[in-house]
Amino acid sequence: MITDAQVERWLREDVGHHDVTNQVPGETTGRLVAKESGVAAGLEAAAAVFDYLDVAVTDRLEAGAEIEPGDELLRVVGSAREVLRGERVAVNLAGHASGIATRTGEAVERARTEADDVAIAATRKTTPGLRGLEKRAVVAGGGDTHRLDLSHMVMIKDNHIEELGLEEAIDHFRERTSFATKLDVEVETVADAPRAAAAGADIVLLDNMTPTETRAAVDELADYEGVLAEASGGIGLADVPAYAATGVDVISMGSLTHSAPSLDLSFKTGE
Amino acid sequence: MITDAQVERWLREDVGHHDVTNQVPGETTGRLVAKESGVAAGLEAAAAVFDYLDVAVTDRLEAGAEIEPGDELLRVVGSAREVLRGERVAVNLAGHASGIATRTGEAVERARTEADDVAIAATRKTTPGLRGLEKRAVVAGGGDTHRLDLSHMVMIKDNHIEELGLEEAIDHFRERTSFATKLDVEVETVADAPRAAAAGADIVLLDNMTPTETRAAVDELADYEGVLAEASGGIGLADVPAYAATGVDVISMGSLTHSAPSLDLSFKTGE
Amino acid sequence: MITDAQVERWLREDVGHHDVTNQVPGETTGRLVAKESGVAAGLEAAAAVFDYLDVAVTDRLEAGAEIEPGDELLRVVGSAREVLRGERVAVNLAGHASGIATRTGEAVERARTEADDVAIAATRKTTPGLRGLEKRAVVAGGGDTHRLDLSHMVMIKDNHIEELGLEEAIDHFRERTSFATKLDVEVETVADAPRAAAAGADIVLLDNMTPTETRAAVDELADYEGVLAEASGGIGLADVPAYAATGVDVISMGSLTHSAPSLDLSFKTGE
Amino acid sequence: MITDAQVERWLREDVGHHDVTNQVPGETTGRLVAKESGVAAGLEAAAAVFDYLDVAVTDRLEAGAEIEPGDELLRVVGSAREVLRGERVAVNLAGHASGIATRTGEAVERARTEADDVAIAATRKTTPGLRGLEKRAVVAGGGDTHRLDLSHMVMIKDNHIEELGLEEAIDHFRERTSFATKLDVEVETVADAPRAAAAGADIVLLDNMTPTETRAAVDELADYEGVLAEASGGIGLADVPAYAATGVDVISMGSLTHSAPSLDLSFKTGE
Amino acid sequence: MITDAQVERWLREDVGHHDVTNQVPGETTGRLVAKESGVAAGLEAAAAVFDYLDVAVTDRLEAGAEIEPGDELLRVVGSAREVLRGERVAVNLAGHASGIATRTGEAVERARTEADDVAIAATRKTTPGLRGLEKRAVVAGGGDTHRLDLSHMVMIKDNHIEELGLEEAIDHFRERTSFATKLDVEVETVADAPRAAAAGADIVLLDNMTPTETRAAVDELADYEGVLAEASGGIGLADVPAYAATGVDVISMGSLTHSAPSLDLSFKTGE
Amino acid sequence: MITDAQVERWLREDVGHHDVTNQVPGETTGRLVAKESGVAAGLEAAAAVFDYLDVAVTDRLEAGAEIEPGDELLRVVGSAREVLRGERVAVNLAGHASGIATRTGEAVERARTEADDVAIAATRKTTPGLRGLEKRAVVAGGGDTHRLDLSHMVMIKDNHIEELGLEEAIDHFRERTSFATKLDVEVETVADAPRAAAAGADIVLLDNMTPTETRAAVDELADYEGVLAEASGGIGLADVPAYAATGVDVISMGSLTHSAPSLDLSFKTGE
Repeated sequence: MITDAQVERWLREDVGHHDVTNQVPGETTGRLVAKESGVAAGLEAAAAVFDYLDVAVTDRLEAGAEIEPGDELLRVVGSAREVLRGERVAVNLAGHASGIATRTGEAVERARTEADDVAIAATRKTTPGLRGLEKRAVVAGGGDTHRLDLSHMVMIKDNHIEELGLEEAIDHFRERTSFATKLDVEVETVADAPRAAAAGADIVLLDNMTPTETRAAVDELADYEGVLAEASGGIGLADVPAYAATGVDVISMGSLTHSAPSLDLSFKTGE
Repeated sequence: MITDAQVERWLREDVGHHDVTNQVPGETTGRLVAKESGVAAGLEAAAAVFDYLDVAVTDRLEAGAEIEPGDELLRVVGSAREVLRGERVAVNLAGHASGIATRTGEAVERARTEADDVAIAATRKTTPGLRGLEKRAVVAGGGDTHRLDLSHMVMIKDNHIEELGLEEAIDHFRERTSFATKLDVEVETVADAPRAAAAGADIVLLDNMTPTETRAAVDELADYEGVLAEASGGIGLADVPAYAATGVDVISMGSLTHSAPSLDLSFKTGE
Repeated sequence: MITDAQVERWLREDVGHHDVTNQVPGETTGRLVAKESGVAAGLEAAAAVFDYLDVAVTDRLEAGAEIEPGDELLRVVGSAREVLRGERVAVNLAGHASGIATRTGEAVERARTEADDVAIAATRKTTPGLRGLEKRAVVAGGGDTHRLDLSHMVMIKDNHIEELGLEEAIDHFRERTSFATKLDVEVETVADAPRAAAAGADIVLLDNMTPTETRAAVDELADYEGVLAEASGGIGLADVPAYAATGVDVISMGSLTHSAPSLDLSFKTGE
Repeated sequence: MITDAQVERWLREDVGHHDVTNQVPGETTGRLVAKESGVAAGLEAAAAVFDYLDVAVTDRLEAGAEIEPGDELLRVVGSAREVLRGERVAVNLAGHASGIATRTGEAVERARTEADDVAIAATRKTTPGLRGLEKRAVVAGGGDTHRLDLSHMVMIKDNHIEELGLEEAIDHFRERTSFATKLDVEVETVADAPRAAAAGADIVLLDNMTPTETRAAVDELADYEGVLAEASGGIGLADVPAYAATGVDVISMGSLTHSAPSLDLSFKTGE
Repeated sequence: MITDAQVERWLREDVGHHDVTNQVPGETTGRLVAKESGVAAGLEAAAAVFDYLDVAVTDRLEAGAEIEPGDELLRVVGSAREVLRGERVAVNLAGHASGIATRTGEAVERARTEADDVAIAATRKTTPGLRGLEKRAVVAGGGDTHRLDLSHMVMIKDNHIEELGLEEAIDHFRERTSFATKLDVEVETVADAPRAAAAGADIVLLDNMTPTETRAAVDELADYEGVLAEASGGIGLADVPAYAATGVDVISMGSLTHSAPSLDLSFKTGE
Repeated sequence: MITDAQVERWLREDVGHHDVTNQVPGETTGRLVAKESGVAAGLEAAAAVFDYLDVAVTDRLEAGAEIEPGDELLRVVGSAREVLRGERVAVNLAGHASGIATRTGEAVERARTEADDVAIAATRKTTPGLRGLEKRAVVAGGGDTHRLDLSHMVMIKDNHIEELGLEEAIDHFRERTSFATKLDVEVETVADAPRAAAAGADIVLLDNMTPTETRAAVDELADYEGVLAEASGGIGLADVPAYAATGVDVISMGSLTHSAPSLDLSFKTGE
């Protein structure tokens, strides 16, 4: 959900106190056009910018649409002054989100060469201020949001386990966790994976393991019905097939959100 | 300038309504450590996050410092609960900004193989909400901010020129522009470059020209003392030396801010 | 997490433009004292108010502490002017939250007469602006937060089921739901309960059923390991034992947050 | 006055980052319907929520309307997606405010059994963030707002009087108070009531007195034309007639706002 | 009450995205010094700016202090960088408020030549965003705030009276007005003044009357004990004595806040 | 750019919690009318207030229009309730801005008696919260914004020069300043003016010089093509011709924004 307050901050950041080039009379049409192929995302945010400026959004692609160079993602019509005022912010948002969706799409495609079901998930390594936009862009690219914030799912990490012990940490947090919330437990050795499952993890995160170790851990978890296995830790695009082949349920990748290059989009006004 | 209101929004976005893992007793030390080499930036923002949480920042690198794997960028000490609450947001900010500084540093280095003075400049293609952070990161990497917002410098673009004519557009905006503000005029042909300079441009932006055309335009501008030449339009890292060799004063690159991968940083607590 | 921006809004709402009674010299001590027995909550918010005003919080009870008349919940020391400025807002917050914790504690106690494990859960029927405070107050009273917001857990409601069919709706949303998120499916007949479980519900919400119907549904769900049964719909304090006796895992009650009377607290300054 | 910024905060609090159930196509009608009898209030806030979401409010009751089970308080029509997004927040606001109006109406009714004119007034014991909504709900129920914030009316309390003396405190604050502002002076004994009036109080607040004491104080104040008598301090619904019979002008009750149960309302979509 | 959110907006407005002159090492002292004589005000706001920047305020004059050229109003000590960052905003606030206090002081002084008690009051003609600052500056200059906002006191204006009739309008609003709130009724003829008083006005505003008419109206109001007479409407500094001599209780002047020139202050750093 | 968030703050500041006079039925027309002659400004802000309240702005003058008593600046039509709610804030904004534009117009007119081209410029001595409004009002009056914020243009001041030396300070900041940004260097003696120009100043600010000194400095700067001369420091309206006659390019005056009296405007409803 993009709020007016966000749009205001973004516009104000770009405009400053007095923009003399913005005094353009009349009405115009604006079109957001792809200059390279990829997956569309962030158009709800671009549209919210124009809505705030009372510029009508007459057409837009669905999030997740495959786009080719020349495809039109969004079309607006309204006061030329306001169209121009919104242009840069709208392109920045849509380019950023579409870049993430495109990168996610590539990861999913690589995963599919080895496994039909493995989820490609984002992390909390998002750009501050844009969590929702980026998570929705991951979904647009065929990925999984993973946890949205610290309150959405409980993750038990190495420091918790060091302090309390593995089973004790799981007990400790299970007791404090709502029935509505899942528990994801991070383990660093193959041997700890079944211990975590036995102690009540909903998901076991296999941290920084090689594909071989990951496969071994997945095998150990086979006995625990309903418990998911997640591979995580520095997994890049090139590593995806190897992890996908291990049988894990989820591969999570920070790079989907923090290192995807922007998708090249341009904004054309007139006709 | 990072405000408390920004920090609040970033933390709230990450925390949600009820984080059960955050109830950690005692004090701890936290260290932000590089996992790859690059250029440090964004540490003022990371520090602002900890300041807001009343966690003391006891040491931090200067923006622009060269870092190697294992180097410590920031050190904090305070309530474990608050250190952990700030960790993810701080890493996300510093990783993002340092990625931009590092990418800028690479561009500057490539430019220096051909020219001692050419500026490597960012654009307005920044992430909404992080304009200041990203512009300062470009400076940390040895680059130039270019215009900070629409009010900072007047840019006369193709649509203005189409509507009014080149000289007329420059006259029109010069009249409306403060003595404190420069005029950057976008031209698409070599022939238009000296026309723009003659009509009063402070900077002539050579849009989407090849290096050969750019060099020709730079030659044409030689007679106009004090007028700067700027190359812009889809210039990637690999293209930098060729443009630097043309004699332009400024090379501007949107990819510095919108497509730099995050620098890999980790946050270590305890000991 | 209580932010400075919230505290500012609350204080400003209470102060207005020019309060002449607030010009009190010197330092004072302030104590938040119970006038009736109950369960303490909201003290982190009361403390945040005083922190904002640079008044030191020298002592406070843990959320969830049982309190008797005369017990001190919070003690502060600082500028008399600022202590008085914060007093009313702090009492309003702590009284409201403690009222919710107390009401929750009563519901839990009644449930325990019939069942050791059933969770007493809140709903989304919270006071706008105070979601987090109220959910934490429910936890302080021994209850369960239930879902924190629409993104935390997916609830499939009657209108979804009418439109798509029961199994189809579950399939539809399962596909769109992260592995990190549970699915709670609302059913209105005993017969639909096992259908929902079979189709993949994590929790089956038995809506507006009598205790007898609830018990029947719980029996039907016994075959589905790991699937939880939740009773919901107009359940008041007096109804809790009857529902607890049915074997449901969760009883959710909007009245915990929207109709709990404030706990009577007073704020004493001086000595 | 409900602002867009408030509505945004309320919606965002309820939605979180990514709500998958919200993707509902088409238009719908929504109706806010009473499930019990009472007094309508808070509908301007509920309407503001839908306005923000561009959902048209086609009908709504006036604040203060008496409602019976089945009565429709508010009707909206618009995008199903947006109607559903606003529903919970709108119901929470209207239920909360109508609960306060209903409780106030009961207090007024009880007072009328003994006195035609006595005002039933709220206090500053309101829910942080909802002062205006709650004060207007009290008015909807036939009550009096009492002071809206610290700047609206000056109240001289026991601690001021202890420090300065009764007459001196009144002099002190009268001098600092605008001609536009009234002075309400809190006294704890019958004997102090006429002293306060003689010294210039506009209202004398009889704090924590029994009805008998209150009647005695009212008698003492009879000579001071234009000076009002206010009873205050732990007065519950059941105590209202006894205080009303004393001849006081105002009975103020914190419980109107901090302990009124929500009125049971439901939101129906479709028709 | 100056909030952090206000200070942030003011600083951000002045700083922009990247201020290169602000990188000053070390500590410094800063002193706000008068360049002309007048009355000090706004120092709580100037201090709030420095507090936000963690610069210590070591000394400041009381609001209302008479100042001569060279007098020091405020002294701070802290990081040179932060002192310089706050300087301009602090001077702008204090100069503006002190200008209002000084102008008010002049009006009060002129009034005192003719009447010992008449109040010199501000209006709602304040600078948007600075209502509280300006009202407090009026008080600092010896004036009266008049009503702080629309909710503070009810003013019945010509358009209400035209629509409903004078007595009827007073009845209408008296019924809707809290006991805590005064009624100020605007009349345009001498004859209407006693009608307004008889009908229940607390204050009668004599709008746009000459001093002679005003005196006549004051005479008419003499019989109504406790009812105040207010002169208003385009009264400038030079007109004050003539109105003060009429015996009115209040003279209200929009120019106190909307047209007072700033008091000339300078900010000196170092030594 | 006036944002909704600003308008909300302004309206809320004026309305308070409960305004009983605002319950006016029906539609009305509102007209903002001049009571004295001057230059119109701030109408975009007044219009933004009415837009926020869903009141249609059917006509408004251009910023900079010359107005005579009786001229209509703005016309709106809409719900009477909302028109009245916006009235005071709209008048306060437009009166304040038009006062600045009018004062600026007077300064420009006086300057034109001696010089055709000299710019009359504002400073950063603006009212906190209204920087943009006031700078645009200066432009409306025929003036120049000067620098909009600290990031817009670099000003090298006496304290920088004392610390580093004149030429060194200019070198120091030139190196840190974007090509997009000008350098304005403050000098206090005639002799320093050409030194500053030689060292690379874009503008030389002649601080607190007499007209005679200013003229001497302008003569010294004649050899430095493209370098502008700016007179600044306590220049009032009466001093403008003398400075204009010196040949400076810019005269900057803080009093344009901080001491211009409001232009007298009234708001009429009905007919």
